[in-house]
Amino acid sequence: MNQWLQDDERMDQLLSHNLSIIQSPSVFSFSLDAVLLADFAQPAKHDRTKIVDLCAGNGVVGLLLSQKTSSAIIGIELQERLVDMANRTIQINALEGQLSMVHGNLSDASKWIKKDTVDTLTCNPPYFAVGEKSIKNPNSHLAIARHELHTNLDEVMKVSSSLLKMNGKAYFVHRPDRLIEILETMKKYQIAPKKMRLVYPKEGKEANTLLIEGIKDGKNAGFRVLPPLFVYSEDNNYLPEVSEMLYGVR
Amino acid sequence: MNQWLQDDERMDQLLSHNLSIIQSPSVFSFSLDAVLLADFAQPAKHDRTKIVDLCAGNGVVGLLLSQKTSSAIIGIELQERLVDMANRTIQINALEGQLSMVHGNLSDASKWIKKDTVDTLTCNPPYFAVGEKSIKNPNSHLAIARHELHTNLDEVMKVSSSLLKMNGKAYFVHRPDRLIEILETMKKYQIAPKKMRLVYPKEGKEANTLLIEGIKDGKNAGFRVLPPLFVYSEDNNYLPEVSEMLYGVR
Repeated sequence: MNQWLQDDERMDQLLSHNLSIIQSPSVFSFSLDAVLLADFAQPAKHDRTKIVDLCAGNGVVGLLLSQKTSSAIIGIELQERLVDMANRTIQINALEGQLSMVHGNLSDASKWIKKDTVDTLTCNPPYFAVGEKSIKNPNSHLAIARHELHTNLDEVMKVSSSLLKMNGKAYFVHRPDRLIEILETMKKYQIAPKKMRLVYPKEGKEANTLLIEGIKDGKNAGFRVLPPLFVYSEDNNYLPEVSEMLYGVR
Repeated sequence: MNQWLQDDERMDQLLSHNLSIIQSPSVFSFSLDAVLLADFAQPAKHDRTKIVDLCAGNGVVGLLLSQKTSSAIIGIELQERLVDMANRTIQINALEGQLSMVHGNLSDASKWIKKDTVDTLTCNPPYFAVGEKSIKNPNSHLAIARHELHTNLDEVMKVSSSLLKMNGKAYFVHRPDRLIEILETMKKYQIAPKKMRLVYPKEGKEANTLLIEGIKDGKNAGFRVLPPLFVYSEDNNYLPEVSEMLYGVR
């Protein structure tokens, strides 16, 4: 498979689905959060919906979603190098008929995707507000993926809302310390929060990840908090639900 | 002890603290939520702070808080019959030096408690918005405690904010389906949400209770989601953390 790889890239297996994905420690490797997001999202199974993944990175969320639906999935990613990795991953898995990538800025999304047409949208955005005390990664590829250097929560929600059709569903993964801002921004752009799931690294620890579903132009009622998800056991092994997401076995 | 009891009242024991409390199935019996709220609240231990419990019911939250602090605790309750029960409970436990009750409406709170003077405030308010499809309890005592007939979330937050001093802490117990409204109303009245704990009846079930701490005039940063609390085991026994709150033993 080496003809597919450049520089320090490697081919990883998504064992739960028999998929291969190109990663690179110096450019982008997907995190557990992407896997959690793909698990949380509920696209229609049939092939008649339109699915968009914003901040698509190396395409991992779209790749995983392709196993839950027959519909077309379009990823939008700012970093050309990541789009290139994603495109090779799509070829390797022979998913060109279902998955495609767009290289560009979120703010230009409507150039490629007509407004008010998307049924299901996912996004694993950069988590860290610029100006936060957190130290930015000196590697610019990783910094862009993690810090709000080229987009921010407001833009993510604004673009998501503009792309979604009425009653279209949006799924986000983010950090719990930004929950209040997330809810406010969803409201600002008419995405009604409907379901939230909190992810805790271990029993007895504070949540470090949140998953949230919103409905474009939905009613502001019926908000639900799903059962919590714990990632690791006391002895630092993946717990069954996470193990199944990653490896396909509990 | 029967000289203390009226009608269908009974004396229950709060075994975790060797306290007695007067209850009545037809008027008011405290719920687990009150116990969770008292456990969640963190008053200073010393005797130099002012603590207020709004929607105090039969005084259970103040009674439990008296075991965590030496400071004075004032309960405000609209229903005269419940204030009377609470006052007898205070006498039985010989806590007149620390606990007191005020009979009156939340909107009049500043008649009895000076604005901007409270260090720690707790409230287990009515959960159900009037007009929700939920059926109101035909018993008016219970209906007032459960439905927003005489107060509502907006008033609870408004009064809480007016009583709290700068950096004073407020603790609320409520239902997760109103989380978004709770956060918005806290913001409206300058109570910055700081910590949230979600309570799940059992593993694998959705959250049915939320506990939230806010700081008057606090910064909008550093929001945390504490470890989840599960109430019942698979075989419907209280789990150790809850058992300890209720009975003092795990």
